[in-house]
Amino acid sequence: MPTILGQNQYGKAENRVVKITRDGATHHIKDLNVSIALSGDMEEVHYSGSNANVLPTDTTKNTVFAFAKEHGVESAEQFGIHLARHFVTSQDAIHRARVRVEEYAWERIAVPDAGRAGHSFVRKGQETRLTQITYDGERWEVVSGLKDLTVLNSTDSEFRGYVKDRYTTLEEAYDRILATSVSGRWRFNWTGDDQPAPDWDDSYEQVRRHLLEAFAETYSRSLQQTLHRMGARVLDHRGEIDEVRFSLPNSHHFLVDLEPFGLENDTADGAVYVAADRPYGLIEGTVLREGCEARIPVDLTSP
Amino acid sequence: MPTILGQNQYGKAENRVVKITRDGATHHIKDLNVSIALSGDMEEVHYSGSNANVLPTDTTKNTVFAFAKEHGVESAEQFGIHLARHFVTSQDAIHRARVRVEEYAWERIAVPDAGRAGHSFVRKGQETRLTQITYDGERWEVVSGLKDLTVLNSTDSEFRGYVKDRYTTLEEAYDRILATSVSGRWRFNWTGDDQPAPDWDDSYEQVRRHLLEAFAETYSRSLQQTLHRMGARVLDHRGEIDEVRFSLPNSHHFLVDLEPFGLENDTADGAVYVAADRPYGLIEGTVLREGCEARIPVDLTSP
Amino acid sequence: MPTILGQNQYGKAENRVVKITRDGATHHIKDLNVSIALSGDMEEVHYSGSNANVLPTDTTKNTVFAFAKEHGVESAEQFGIHLARHFVTSQDAIHRARVRVEEYAWERIAVPDAGRAGHSFVRKGQETRLTQITYDGERWEVVSGLKDLTVLNSTDSEFRGYVKDRYTTLEEAYDRILATSVSGRWRFNWTGDDQPAPDWDDSYEQVRRHLLEAFAETYSRSLQQTLHRMGARVLDHRGEIDEVRFSLPNSHHFLVDLEPFGLENDTADGAVYVAADRPYGLIEGTVLREGCEARIPVDLTSP
Amino acid sequence: MPTILGQNQYGKAENRVVKITRDGATHHIKDLNVSIALSGDMEEVHYSGSNANVLPTDTTKNTVFAFAKEHGVESAEQFGIHLARHFVTSQDAIHRARVRVEEYAWERIAVPDAGRAGHSFVRKGQETRLTQITYDGERWEVVSGLKDLTVLNSTDSEFRGYVKDRYTTLEEAYDRILATSVSGRWRFNWTGDDQPAPDWDDSYEQVRRHLLEAFAETYSRSLQQTLHRMGARVLDHRGEIDEVRFSLPNSHHFLVDLEPFGLENDTADGAVYVAADRPYGLIEGTVLREGCEARIPVDLTSP
Repeated sequence: MPTILGQNQYGKAENRVVKITRDGATHHIKDLNVSIALSGDMEEVHYSGSNANVLPTDTTKNTVFAFAKEHGVESAEQFGIHLARHFVTSQDAIHRARVRVEEYAWERIAVPDAGRAGHSFVRKGQETRLTQITYDGERWEVVSGLKDLTVLNSTDSEFRGYVKDRYTTLEEAYDRILATSVSGRWRFNWTGDDQPAPDWDDSYEQVRRHLLEAFAETYSRSLQQTLHRMGARVLDHRGEIDEVRFSLPNSHHFLVDLEPFGLENDTADGAVYVAADRPYGLIEGTVLREGCEARIPVDLTSP
Repeated sequence: MPTILGQNQYGKAENRVVKITRDGATHHIKDLNVSIALSGDMEEVHYSGSNANVLPTDTTKNTVFAFAKEHGVESAEQFGIHLARHFVTSQDAIHRARVRVEEYAWERIAVPDAGRAGHSFVRKGQETRLTQITYDGERWEVVSGLKDLTVLNSTDSEFRGYVKDRYTTLEEAYDRILATSVSGRWRFNWTGDDQPAPDWDDSYEQVRRHLLEAFAETYSRSLQQTLHRMGARVLDHRGEIDEVRFSLPNSHHFLVDLEPFGLENDTADGAVYVAADRPYGLIEGTVLREGCEARIPVDLTSP
Repeated sequence: MPTILGQNQYGKAENRVVKITRDGATHHIKDLNVSIALSGDMEEVHYSGSNANVLPTDTTKNTVFAFAKEHGVESAEQFGIHLARHFVTSQDAIHRARVRVEEYAWERIAVPDAGRAGHSFVRKGQETRLTQITYDGERWEVVSGLKDLTVLNSTDSEFRGYVKDRYTTLEEAYDRILATSVSGRWRFNWTGDDQPAPDWDDSYEQVRRHLLEAFAETYSRSLQQTLHRMGARVLDHRGEIDEVRFSLPNSHHFLVDLEPFGLENDTADGAVYVAADRPYGLIEGTVLREGCEARIPVDLTSP
Repeated sequence: MPTILGQNQYGKAENRVVKITRDGATHHIKDLNVSIALSGDMEEVHYSGSNANVLPTDTTKNTVFAFAKEHGVESAEQFGIHLARHFVTSQDAIHRARVRVEEYAWERIAVPDAGRAGHSFVRKGQETRLTQITYDGERWEVVSGLKDLTVLNSTDSEFRGYVKDRYTTLEEAYDRILATSVSGRWRFNWTGDDQPAPDWDDSYEQVRRHLLEAFAETYSRSLQQTLHRMGARVLDHRGEIDEVRFSLPNSHHFLVDLEPFGLENDTADGAVYVAADRPYGLIEGTVLREGCEARIPVDLTSP
């Protein structure tokens, strides 16, 4: 057959692991969604269906749960690194492992009876933290990120001076709402076991803080400008990161026309907006440290 | 035709209203999803299609946005009351209005530059606040609530002493995770304009606090018991409320069997669980103040 | 405590049962999502957490799967009846059982090699069939239905002659798209074991056909009129049914204003529409056989 | 600032265009979801917020709707080609356009009154058809595909002979259900205006048919083998296509253990399965025509 087998990978997706650690009456929780994708000498399973080189996806699932017990879950990144190393080093036929982790954050429920506070949690509900670990036996690539961090500036955003063509009807805006649900990824320059690894949790908290601050502090002439400031701010402050990519839907909030009802709806007074679902603008871009290669794929969210 | 027209209602659903109020450089945001349902003399529109008694759903939408400007949005409940009163009193053919509101909470982004902090928000992301206002020209019924408040106790939950029949295989649990996503509704005993209305926002915050505290503080022998404690606690502390109903999925977290891998997975040490999606237990119940009538419908979440 | 326990129920929700039946090389598939809700003497479990009257939700799950094997799955309704009877008659403390079933339809994949055709299926993908069986030891109530049946008429719909008030801006429409996603429920007058049961599968197919025909054949002056015709048609043709309720979102398709681009967008020629998401009109109503009681709850879809 | 702007693009996503064409009383419907992404000289908008090179996303939206009227919608691919050509050739600053289209299929409602049949439709509900057109002023790339085509074989699938390691507990399966929800993309070798374009609609129907036939006819020793057969079959029969990629979740259907209830649950008789949600196996792979380059990105579905 005049065909070739191209890139392929397999594994168990969306293993929902919850790890409780007890420190006396104080418990800690890690709540993860772990997906494994393995590649290697997989021609035969595609051509003849022989599974001689195939570690079952069921085994990859078991490994995730067993590792949560054996090695604990220090951070999403560290957990992914343990798993990726295991698959590549323990199986001859597996040459590359990619581990993706979503992490859901919880906070403690405040209760008057402090004795009970240690084991009661409410889900935080904001963004989902993400990481992707890729290992080919030699080089590590760690890309972390987040999704569904919804932010809004109620002023300090305008949009004008744009190209007008036959199909342009939009009026220029001098004071608009700028709102988006941030999907971001950032690539670490840590690539190998000979380098000290970043403090993954602290790095995440700092990047998140910089994103939010850049979003809030930018007087925005376009969402592209805000995107760039968010990326540049991260690279300026976080030496462990070389590349940042964002996918930012422009979640339109349209000023409602209330003139037919004899009402002025002026932004200066505080105004009424309709939050629209679809269509939405979609602004995507990468900011890179000079001299570095872009490696984060273009599509952060699927079609 | 030997048929009768039964209960019917119509209106515009899911109007996404965002109201910004400016207090100098400090802005406030109300972010609502408002649904209108009207009933009355609607036989003709069903039988012949005559719209002579029909206020278009488009008009109900316009009214929502205009009222947000004219009357402001003090609270979801107060806004719903304004709207319901308007529809019933301004249209002869409309005898009953039901207004449902979902409210999405935002918090301020903390920024070093305090001058910018006033207009930058991040969506809170936890539960969605709900209210439903019903008015028939005489009597008000206000049912408020929340959904998607996800909580978890990592211990102080057991399940044993239950009925065993031919189909029972479950082993008794002495120390399990208890997790649920709270869907709750509570009915106010405020029914009319001659009574002082509750402080709706404060009431919401207090009910939410009591729910969380009751969830955290109950040593649970069954999710039903926890449900009852949550409801009773609300009624004990909030005199403005006569009825509480919950729908609580039992979000199972199963202890993973790690014995095949030579690992003990004992809750006493901190353990590894798999968070399951489906099926889930579903525990639903009403707690009523003595002498009060149950009026909240059984189904809080749809089939 | 001056509180009373109101309506309560519990059970395992969303048991995903797939039953394959083999008839030589020809296989048949039933693909169900079954939810159980039980009520009875459940005060103690709420007050003290004693589970002495509680059949675990895990057991209700086991029963669903075991019954699929023991009794087969003739139809969603028949399967639900078996289950409901079992729970009420086998447990003293259980006085009422409600079984809900969603059914997903499959069709055979057409293949040249007929020998293989017997066991290969593609999911049909249209509406989801629903049923709800309720049994209290004496009386049966069967309400069947469907959801997500999306239909559209590209003409023969108008909307005019409606009430105009201060907030009305809508222009009358003489030729519009009428589109909705039908959610319907219908109640059978079969209530007991002494009556012959309807042919549940045939009844479903016929009701579905009548709905679609009534939707297609009605020249619509309002969606309420279409709703009524759909309900009345079912009652006219199906003597086994006494009550029908629909929840019909009016899925707006707005004619796009192309005048700024020098283009006429006239319905007579075939036109371009934008399909809007939110807000949407929501039209809900019941049609009853004369002399019958309305028992289907108002909310088919949850808030 | 020592940063570089990497890949970036912008445009209006999810424009929901419905085009009705009238052929007397017989209407035709095209129901699309169109997303535009434009790239070019966009440094300034990122650095300073100057929009001098920016065609607003609102204009890209208007263009989509105007083109549906001006040029009609012959096929999703042809419509995307018109749009991509327009953006690249009409704006100096735009060097590349990518147009993505989702298409929702409808079929006619069968009605006794044939006169009404021409304008009444029910949504088909199976897979969503996809296409992506990319144009840089010189070269065209057309990748079409589908998602959410759910298929199941109730036999002729096994899984055995795999690697066993310390974490393997899975038992070999000799007769299992194989079920998946196909997400596929295929790349056409049509790259330019000098070549005759394929018949896009016919090509889609044929590819879909070959996928289904290959799925049904393969006795499967692993889902990878089935994936490969599906891809190879398409390349064998469709000369206009050079590359196919699939993402196939292994939607596990586990045989339920009914032994505790004294029931045999043997596949040979027809058996009862539980359809699991998560985790699921995920099998992804590309099949290429010999000598051709792989260009479809690895991630068909997002993390």
